[in-house]
Amino acid sequence: MALIVQKYGGTSVGDVERIQGVARRVARYKEAGHDVVVVVSAISGETNRLMAMGQQIGGDKPLPRELDVLLSSGEQVTIALLSMALMQLGVSAKSLLGDQVAVHTDSAFGKARIERIDTQTLKADLDQGVVPVVAGFQGVNGDGDITTLGRGGSDTSAVALAAALHADECEICTDVDGVYTADPRIIKDARRLDQVTFEEMLELASLGSKVLHPRSVEFAGRYKVPLRVLSTFQEGPGTLITMEMDNMEQAIVSGIAHALDEAKITVAGVPDIPGVASKILGPIGRKNIEVDMILQNTGADGLTDFTFTVKRQDFAEALATLENMAKEFSAREISGDDAIAKVSIVGVGMRSHAGVATRMFDALAAENINIQMISTSEIKISVVVAERYMELAVRALHAEFELHDQEQSANV
Amino acid sequence: MALIVQKYGGTSVGDVERIQGVARRVARYKEAGHDVVVVVSAISGETNRLMAMGQQIGGDKPLPRELDVLLSSGEQVTIALLSMALMQLGVSAKSLLGDQVAVHTDSAFGKARIERIDTQTLKADLDQGVVPVVAGFQGVNGDGDITTLGRGGSDTSAVALAAALHADECEICTDVDGVYTADPRIIKDARRLDQVTFEEMLELASLGSKVLHPRSVEFAGRYKVPLRVLSTFQEGPGTLITMEMDNMEQAIVSGIAHALDEAKITVAGVPDIPGVASKILGPIGRKNIEVDMILQNTGADGLTDFTFTVKRQDFAEALATLENMAKEFSAREISGDDAIAKVSIVGVGMRSHAGVATRMFDALAAENINIQMISTSEIKISVVVAERYMELAVRALHAEFELHDQEQSANV
Repeated sequence: MALIVQKYGGTSVGDVERIQGVARRVARYKEAGHDVVVVVSAISGETNRLMAMGQQIGGDKPLPRELDVLLSSGEQVTIALLSMALMQLGVSAKSLLGDQVAVHTDSAFGKARIERIDTQTLKADLDQGVVPVVAGFQGVNGDGDITTLGRGGSDTSAVALAAALHADECEICTDVDGVYTADPRIIKDARRLDQVTFEEMLELASLGSKVLHPRSVEFAGRYKVPLRVLSTFQEGPGTLITMEMDNMEQAIVSGIAHALDEAKITVAGVPDIPGVASKILGPIGRKNIEVDMILQNTGADGLTDFTFTVKRQDFAEALATLENMAKEFSAREISGDDAIAKVSIVGVGMRSHAGVATRMFDALAAENINIQMISTSEIKISVVVAERYMELAVRALHAEFELHDQEQSANV
Repeated sequence: MALIVQKYGGTSVGDVERIQGVARRVARYKEAGHDVVVVVSAISGETNRLMAMGQQIGGDKPLPRELDVLLSSGEQVTIALLSMALMQLGVSAKSLLGDQVAVHTDSAFGKARIERIDTQTLKADLDQGVVPVVAGFQGVNGDGDITTLGRGGSDTSAVALAAALHADECEICTDVDGVYTADPRIIKDARRLDQVTFEEMLELASLGSKVLHPRSVEFAGRYKVPLRVLSTFQEGPGTLITMEMDNMEQAIVSGIAHALDEAKITVAGVPDIPGVASKILGPIGRKNIEVDMILQNTGADGLTDFTFTVKRQDFAEALATLENMAKEFSAREISGDDAIAKVSIVGVGMRSHAGVATRMFDALAAENINIQMISTSEIKISVVVAERYMELAVRALHAEFELHDQEQSANV
């Protein structure tokens, strides 16, 4: 008998029938003798619908405190409906809002951080065989105000609950059946990974694999919560995200990620003197625009080219901000490009294998794909290429590192 | 400067534009120097939408605790949106859920009774010039569970808050501009009443005038909260519901109410012995069916006819219940009729005027309307007539007691 925290996202609870399906899935775990805590998101589309009403009144930036009151009502609907559906199946269940658990957070409305979780109510319910059905995405601050954790917050809620309860596993039940070596929509014989490490998953999540929110992965890694990504709609083991993997499993590269949501900006010909980076990035940061990759090439003429990437949605604002300030850092030229793709290879195996980068660059060169930017970490290498080469690059790298499903390739 | 509690129903906050309209209305009161506490319902249709989802899962009787979690999310949406709209107008505002106020209730989910209201948070907000925007219809029980007060509960929330805060007035802002001498859809020259007493309003509300929920009127009367019904959408004084009226205002009959939501059941030829009423009504009560009028005629033959009315929605169940038990009270016949109307005259002036009943019966007789049942209280007389005579009966009584708008009749 294990204690399992299960999180069901918006698509999994997309309508009444699906909520009933989730109830049946939870019931099977109870029948198997497990204790289950369920965390749910709002019905898919509901958060957007509420947000649209909020923006209709409050404009681009509706009042944060009230926006959280508004948005958190979405999860409230789901916990009530799922609890009803469980009781209909004869499974004792009880809905719990963020403040009923309680999930204590700071007061950063819209992006609150969990500070601690009371487990007393949850444990009392579990002791009585009750399935607590917890509203994800929400918590309560010290003043008793509702807070929300930001998009992807339900994953974080689930992981945090699993950590607080010392659960045996945290299942993220979603509409895909695991983490793949590459996006299966692009690579037909992409392989589902049985295991990945937290570090790899964190890179994959950050790099555009939408399966898990990076914050929840980080949280799970920090508190050593075994995390499993699996399908709500079909049976299967999914992908276990774990501390260290069996060596048998260990490939050099675990997966290829890609992201199309970035844009790059180049500030060319600025004096190569200390402080120029902060002069350029300072105004960007003050506009709350996040910067991802940063690259600085020193030229021979005492001038340098400074390139960085931002999210595409921030591209126009970032570009305009710099153009307004161009004089201040006496740049020769400021240019931008939002038709770029970031393609990355990720794997803890890289640590112990030299020459991975070379293999990557060679494979891209063989396809005549020009690399615009490179960024590396201990377990990943990312390159920026023109958007139109994205699929080709993913395919080339998937083949180069032999990530395809050999059984599938052989059998099908 | 007064302290005013304003309640806006579902139609008044029916969409984003209307919510913005409500915000402008509240802002005008603030500009005039008043302190305002706002209580709102869910956006019209929202409670029904949520209820439909609940019933889709939970059937006729969804789990009461979870149903309250589900339904209360509707008001949560409105308080957030209205608070945003007020802030957009530069009016400081803050949403408060039932448990944030807190509105303490018993644990009768779906029909909870308010036990006490903490005023500390509200007063602190008012002291700082903030408009508290409170979710109507909801409270919190001793276990921290969300409770709801039942349909019409937002009126009760508003009155209870006004009582707890010793507010100068509680405004029920709705889609009609006051209480009328009769339904203006039937009687074209029906007159808006400037004042009615709580007792009269209670009878009018109970008898089918949908303007106010009887429970809120009773509550207002008990705690002596001056209550005003007025329009959200147009200017005007509305109708003040008060303890005692100026004598000048005092008519014998204040208004004519009608209700089409009842059905009658007759158990004919039962032995006229003690206990027969409870034998008949006991099983009805145990099915949670409310009985309204009860009438027993004693015959000369030691047998009696027993007639009572129930809500039409309970008619079939009530009839079936009695037919199953007919043998037990050896009735000659059990019959029912759901094509009936209840028409009532209401007025505190009746107390001091004899002959009001006679005038009523004469007026109906003059129109050849047969009276099937009669029931009286100190300030009202109700008759049951065939449904098809309802409009005719209301019109005849409106004329008999000279309730028409004399100015309107003269000027128009």
